[in-house]
Amino acid sequence: MSHNSFGHLFRVTTWGESHGPAIGCVVDGCPPGIRLEESYIQARLDQRRPGTSKFVTQRQEPDQVKILSGVFEDDRTDGPRTTGTPISLMIENVDQRSKDYSDIRDKYRPGHADYTYDAKYGFRDYRGGGRSSARETAMRVAAGAVAERVLEELYQDTVKIEAAMIGMGPHTIDPARADWSTVGDNPFWCPDPEAAQHWALRLEEARKDGNSLGALIEVRASGVPAGLGAPIYGKMDSDLAAAMMTINASKGVEIGAGFGASRLSGTENADGMKPDGNGGVMFDPQGPENTNGGILGGITSGQDIVVRLAIKPTSSILTPRKSVTRDGEETEVVTKGRHDPCVGIRGVPVARAMMALVLADHALRHRAQTGLLRPA
Amino acid sequence: MSHNSFGHLFRVTTWGESHGPAIGCVVDGCPPGIRLEESYIQARLDQRRPGTSKFVTQRQEPDQVKILSGVFEDDRTDGPRTTGTPISLMIENVDQRSKDYSDIRDKYRPGHADYTYDAKYGFRDYRGGGRSSARETAMRVAAGAVAERVLEELYQDTVKIEAAMIGMGPHTIDPARADWSTVGDNPFWCPDPEAAQHWALRLEEARKDGNSLGALIEVRASGVPAGLGAPIYGKMDSDLAAAMMTINASKGVEIGAGFGASRLSGTENADGMKPDGNGGVMFDPQGPENTNGGILGGITSGQDIVVRLAIKPTSSILTPRKSVTRDGEETEVVTKGRHDPCVGIRGVPVARAMMALVLADHALRHRAQTGLLRPA
Amino acid sequence: MSHNSFGHLFRVTTWGESHGPAIGCVVDGCPPGIRLEESYIQARLDQRRPGTSKFVTQRQEPDQVKILSGVFEDDRTDGPRTTGTPISLMIENVDQRSKDYSDIRDKYRPGHADYTYDAKYGFRDYRGGGRSSARETAMRVAAGAVAERVLEELYQDTVKIEAAMIGMGPHTIDPARADWSTVGDNPFWCPDPEAAQHWALRLEEARKDGNSLGALIEVRASGVPAGLGAPIYGKMDSDLAAAMMTINASKGVEIGAGFGASRLSGTENADGMKPDGNGGVMFDPQGPENTNGGILGGITSGQDIVVRLAIKPTSSILTPRKSVTRDGEETEVVTKGRHDPCVGIRGVPVARAMMALVLADHALRHRAQTGLLRPA
Amino acid sequence: MSHNSFGHLFRVTTWGESHGPAIGCVVDGCPPGIRLEESYIQARLDQRRPGTSKFVTQRQEPDQVKILSGVFEDDRTDGPRTTGTPISLMIENVDQRSKDYSDIRDKYRPGHADYTYDAKYGFRDYRGGGRSSARETAMRVAAGAVAERVLEELYQDTVKIEAAMIGMGPHTIDPARADWSTVGDNPFWCPDPEAAQHWALRLEEARKDGNSLGALIEVRASGVPAGLGAPIYGKMDSDLAAAMMTINASKGVEIGAGFGASRLSGTENADGMKPDGNGGVMFDPQGPENTNGGILGGITSGQDIVVRLAIKPTSSILTPRKSVTRDGEETEVVTKGRHDPCVGIRGVPVARAMMALVLADHALRHRAQTGLLRPA
Repeated sequence: MSHNSFGHLFRVTTWGESHGPAIGCVVDGCPPGIRLEESYIQARLDQRRPGTSKFVTQRQEPDQVKILSGVFEDDRTDGPRTTGTPISLMIENVDQRSKDYSDIRDKYRPGHADYTYDAKYGFRDYRGGGRSSARETAMRVAAGAVAERVLEELYQDTVKIEAAMIGMGPHTIDPARADWSTVGDNPFWCPDPEAAQHWALRLEEARKDGNSLGALIEVRASGVPAGLGAPIYGKMDSDLAAAMMTINASKGVEIGAGFGASRLSGTENADGMKPDGNGGVMFDPQGPENTNGGILGGITSGQDIVVRLAIKPTSSILTPRKSVTRDGEETEVVTKGRHDPCVGIRGVPVARAMMALVLADHALRHRAQTGLLRPA
Repeated sequence: MSHNSFGHLFRVTTWGESHGPAIGCVVDGCPPGIRLEESYIQARLDQRRPGTSKFVTQRQEPDQVKILSGVFEDDRTDGPRTTGTPISLMIENVDQRSKDYSDIRDKYRPGHADYTYDAKYGFRDYRGGGRSSARETAMRVAAGAVAERVLEELYQDTVKIEAAMIGMGPHTIDPARADWSTVGDNPFWCPDPEAAQHWALRLEEARKDGNSLGALIEVRASGVPAGLGAPIYGKMDSDLAAAMMTINASKGVEIGAGFGASRLSGTENADGMKPDGNGGVMFDPQGPENTNGGILGGITSGQDIVVRLAIKPTSSILTPRKSVTRDGEETEVVTKGRHDPCVGIRGVPVARAMMALVLADHALRHRAQTGLLRPA
Repeated sequence: MSHNSFGHLFRVTTWGESHGPAIGCVVDGCPPGIRLEESYIQARLDQRRPGTSKFVTQRQEPDQVKILSGVFEDDRTDGPRTTGTPISLMIENVDQRSKDYSDIRDKYRPGHADYTYDAKYGFRDYRGGGRSSARETAMRVAAGAVAERVLEELYQDTVKIEAAMIGMGPHTIDPARADWSTVGDNPFWCPDPEAAQHWALRLEEARKDGNSLGALIEVRASGVPAGLGAPIYGKMDSDLAAAMMTINASKGVEIGAGFGASRLSGTENADGMKPDGNGGVMFDPQGPENTNGGILGGITSGQDIVVRLAIKPTSSILTPRKSVTRDGEETEVVTKGRHDPCVGIRGVPVARAMMALVLADHALRHRAQTGLLRPA
Repeated sequence: MSHNSFGHLFRVTTWGESHGPAIGCVVDGCPPGIRLEESYIQARLDQRRPGTSKFVTQRQEPDQVKILSGVFEDDRTDGPRTTGTPISLMIENVDQRSKDYSDIRDKYRPGHADYTYDAKYGFRDYRGGGRSSARETAMRVAAGAVAERVLEELYQDTVKIEAAMIGMGPHTIDPARADWSTVGDNPFWCPDPEAAQHWALRLEEARKDGNSLGALIEVRASGVPAGLGAPIYGKMDSDLAAAMMTINASKGVEIGAGFGASRLSGTENADGMKPDGNGGVMFDPQGPENTNGGILGGITSGQDIVVRLAIKPTSSILTPRKSVTRDGEETEVVTKGRHDPCVGIRGVPVARAMMALVLADHALRHRAQTGLLRPA
C-alpha cells in the first residue's frame, strides 16, 4: 500500500519534489530482455517538456533522463536490454528559481493542494508546489515509455496508443472533422488543425487576461486483444479511471459513451455482434459506435479502448484571488511564476503514458492467470 | 493483487456467483470493539434487494445476511462487537431459476460480459451472468454497512453519506428543485418527488417496450475532515473513481464540477478561501460552488465530497439483438429472465456503499501515517 | 495489506474462529479450467482432522468442506472445474463445547496468545482460542489442495511435495534410516517406522504426565524447475520462511543445511556443478549434499527444495502454571479441554500445504514476468 | 507485488546493481515531521562499509548517501524533516573494477545466483554479481536508519535494537560470557572480546587458505510494547523470518528458543506470568528464559524480541571449484575479486536494519487498526 506507486505486476514508484535536486522513478516488474535506450524514453519526455511553446510554462527544464539500473549491455545483447531487475530513472532539476515561491509559503493558493497538504501533514515543501507539482508527471511519461516497449514486445507492435486534446474550455472539436494523424502538428495535440488555430487565439487571450482554461482529453488504444482485464475490482475500466484521475487537475473520467450512455436507452446502447468470417466475432453497432469503449464486464472486447478525461483550468492565475494565510488571516493570492495557461496540453502525453502503464500491467497479469489452462 | 478485493487497510474480498449456493464477503482490517449486529447490515441490504418495486428485477431474494466470524458477544460486551479478526458475511441464494438462462449458454448477449469472460477464461458459469451478475453488489452493500459503522465510531457520527439518482435516461432533475431528504420516499431514490412521478411513467413505458434506461447517480459525503487522502497514486478522487467504475454498468465518474470544469476558465473555477472566524478556514466560492468536490491534490478539504457516476442502460432487454454463438454462428438474443429496466436504481445503495468503503479505508490510512508527528 | 491473506497472485484469505459457526477461506487468482472436486480437498483435510489417533486432540470434527463458488460443471466440462473466479471454501464447526473454555475467559494461558491478543485488541473471543486456534490451519490444508492441483496442471504432475516429522522433543531420527514412503503408515508422519514405535511410547508418557513435546518437521519439493522465485524481497526462501513461521507454534525455519551451514567453511558448503550430458547442468556436491536446499539467490536451482521447521511443545498442558488474570491478579492455569500432546503431528499436513501455496504463487508469478522475452 | 519492495505501510523499494552507476532506494510511508539528516544515515552506513578491516572486502567504496527527496528544511523546521512524501536515497558506485569479473561472465560460480538468474531471466548483468550482490544491502541499512528514527519518535527512544555475531563457523560464544556493550569494539561485532581475538586468528587462517566461514547472528529489540504484530499471515515472527531470510547468504531464522524449542517439553518451554505490581503483567520463566522470543501468536508480549539467523560461508573463494559454462561445458571457477571471508560480519548491521524496518512497519499498522476503539 504505497501512495506513490502505481500498478501491480508492472509497478512504478515515483519520487521527488518540484524544487528538490531531482525527480525519479523505479519501474519494477518489467520483463527481461526488452530493448531500452535512454533516447527512446527521452523522445517521450520531450513531448511534455516545459518551454516548448508559448502555451506551456516557460520554466526551462531539459528534462534529461538517466537510466541508473535494470538495463545491461554487452557485446551479446545487441544494445541495452532490461534485465528483469528494477529500472531506476532520474531527471535532475535544473531551473528551480525557488525565490518565485517564497511569498506563498504562508498563503494557501485557491484550487491548489497547499491547504490540504498542510491539513494532512502539518507542514509542506511549498517550493513550486513541492510534491503536488505536475512536475511529478514527467516520471509517468518516462515509465510509460518503458510500458510501451513491453507492449511492443508482447504484442509485436500491434497495440497503438494515441492521445489528443479534443476540447479547450468551452471550445470542443467536431468529431467528424477530427484527423488524429495531425495531433503532433500543433502545440495543442488537437486533431482538428483549424480548431487548433482558433484555440491559439483563445488561449492567448486567456493568458493575457491572467486567466486559464480547462481541457478535454481523449486517449485511444487500438489492437488490444480481447480478454485483458479482470472482473469485479480489477476491472480494466476501473484501473483506467483510477489512473486518469491521478493526473493533476483531472476531475472526471469516462469510458466509451461515458456520461452520454446514462442518457441512452438499452436499444440504442449496446453494440451487437456478428461473425467476422474467420470463426471469430466482430462488433456490429446498431446505434452509436463502440458505446462500451472496448470494455465489457471489466475485460477488453477487442474493440478500441476509448477514455476521456476532464481537466480543470489551471488554478495558478495572475488574477488576484481571496485566500487565507497559514495563521488564518485574510489575504489575497496572485500566482506569479511561470505557469501553463492550459495544463491540459501537457496532460496529453501524461494521459497516454497512464494508458500504457495500465495496459502493460494487465498484459502481465493476463499472462499469469490465463491462457494455459482450458477445460476438456 | 486480488481482483476480488477492494481497499487496503479496510479490505473487502467478495465471492460467489449469481446462481451458486451462496454469495459472501470477508471484511479484513476492521478495528476491534465496534458494535455490529446482523440487523444493521440487513437494513442496508433491504435497500438494494430485488423485488421491492415493479421498477426492479422481480427475482425473489430475501437476501438474509449471516455474520460467520469476526464478531463476539458475551455478558461484558454490551451487544455483538467486532474483534479485529476477519468478518465473514454470507447470503444464501434462494430464487435461482437456472432454467431461465439455459438458452443463452451458447450465445453472447450484446452489452454483457459473456463474450469477454469467454475470451479471458475460455469458458464461464453462464447461469444468471455468473460472477459478472450485479448480484455481487449485495456484498458491497453489506461490507459498506460495516464501513459506515467504522466511520460512525471514528468520527462520532459527524460523517454523513447520501446517494441519489439525479437522472434517468434523458430525464435529469433540476438541482434547484432537489430535496435530498425525500430520496427514500420513492422507488427511484430521486430527490425531486415530482420528477419521480414522471420517471415512473417513463420507465413503465420503456419496460413495456422491451427497453431500458441509463441513469445518473450522485453521492455526497459531508462532515469528512480535511486531510484525508494521499498524494499521487493514493488520491481520494482516484480511489473514488476506481470504486465507482467497478460498479456494474458504470461508464463514467466525475468529482465536483467534473466534466463541467473542463469547460470553465480559471477565474470561474477554484473556490476562494476566507477565515472561518475560529482560526480556521472556510471556502468562499466566487463562481459555481465546490467545483473541486471536496478534494484538492487528492486530499479532502473539509467541503462536501461530491461524486457522480453514469450508469448505462441495462443490456438485458426483451428487444431482439443480433449476436453470435460461442461457435461463431450468427444468432439473435432476446433476454428473458427478470431484469431491472433501469439498473441505476439498485446502483444507488451500491454507490453509497462504495463511498463508505473508500472513506473507511482512508480514515484508517490517515491514522497510520499522520496526526502524531509534527515539526518543531 | 491483509493480515489474513497469504500469497500474491495465488491468494488465500482465511476467516473464522475456533468456536464460531464456521471457518472458511477464499482462494483468489486460481487459473480457470482446473478440475476441482470437493472429494480431492476432503482427502487432504482428513489428514489433519482431529480425533484420528490418541496422539491428537479428541475434539470430534468431521471437517466436511463445501465449495461455495468458483467452480462450475455442465455437460461439457468433464467434471467440476475452476472458472477463474474466487473459490470459497467452508467448514461448519460441529463439536464446539464452549463450556470447556469458560473458566479461562479471565486468565492468560502461558505460552498462548491470550495476553497478546488482549494487549492488541482490548478484548478477545476466548472460546477455544478464538482466531488464534490451530483450527484455522484446516483452511490452509484446503487451500493447499487447490494449489497442488494448480501445480499438477502447470507441471504435468512432475512436482512432488512431501512432509514428515523427523524429530519429536529430544528424539530425532537418523536420516540414514529414513524411508519417506512410510510416512503415511504411522500416526506421526515419521519416515522411520521403528522410531515411530518408540515415539508412541514417549508421547504416551508425556501425555500421562500432563506434559507435551516439541517437533521438527521437514518438507521437500522435488521436480520444481530451475528459475522459480525472485531476487531481493521476493525470494523463494524468504516466502517459505514467512509461510512456515505463520504456522501455529513454529519458532524456527531453515533451508537446506540451514543453521548447520553457519558452522561450515566455504569449501565444504557450496554444491559444485557439472554438465548433465544433455546440454544442461547438474549439481555435484563435494561436501554435504544440497546445502542450499534447492535455492540460490532466492531462485530455485532445480534441486529438491528442503525446508525444516521447529515446532514448540503444546502450551496447553494439564500441569498447573502460574499466571495472571485480566485484572492483574495472580492465578494458576490448568488447561483442560482436548489438546494435542504434540501439535507438530497435525502441523505436518499444514506445512506441506504452505509449501504448495508458496510454489503455486511463484509459479503464476513466473508466468507473468519471464519466459517470453529473450535477448538477441 | 513488487520483488524489490519490503514492508507495507513503511515501504522500501531498492534498486541498483553492483557495478552500475549507483544504487538507491525509495522509502514510502514515512510519517511527516521526523528529523532526518544525511549524517544520521551515513553513520549507520559506515558500519557496513567495505574496506574497514582486513576481515571484510577490500573494495573501496565511500558509500556516501544523498537524500534526493522527501525531506525539507526552512527557517521554521529546526533542521531537515520528513514531509510525508517518498524519501529517495542514493549512493553512487565509485570503485567498480568491472574487469575483475570479465572472466566469469560465461561461468556459473558454485553457491552463487549466476545459474539461477540465467534460468529465470535468460541472461544477467554479471558484473560483480549484478543485482544479487550484497551491495544492495547498503540501501537496507540506509532505509533502516530512517525506520529507527520513526521508532525513536513514536516510542520516545525506548525501543533499542542491537545485533551481534555470536558464532563464526564452528566457533560459537558462551552466552554467559557475552557483554553486548562491547560489540562495537571489535571488527566482528562479537559480544565476547576474548572470542573476538580468537576469531581474528581463525578467519585470517581461512582467508589465507582461500576459504571462508559461516556465521551466526543474533538481533534483539528491547522496549517494544506489547500488542504489536498481527494474527495469522501478518505475524511479527513471520515478517521477521521473511526479512532475515532475504539477507544474502541467510539459510535459517529462529525466534526465542527456536530450534531448541522443538526439543523441549511443555513444562520446560512456556514462560509463566505474574503481576508486575503496577496492575500489569510480567513474565516469570520457570525454565529457560524468554523461549518465545517476545512474540506470542504473532504479537509482541513486551519481552525482548530475539531473532537469530544462520549465514552460510561466502561462496566466493580462492579455492578452485568444479562448474559449468553457460553453454554447458565443464569448467573450473576460482573467484578472484575482493571478497568477504565471512559475509556474516557485514550482515550484522543489515540484520539490525531489517529488524528496524519490520518494527516501524508494524508500529504504523498498529496505529491504523488498534488503540482507539474499545468495548463498553
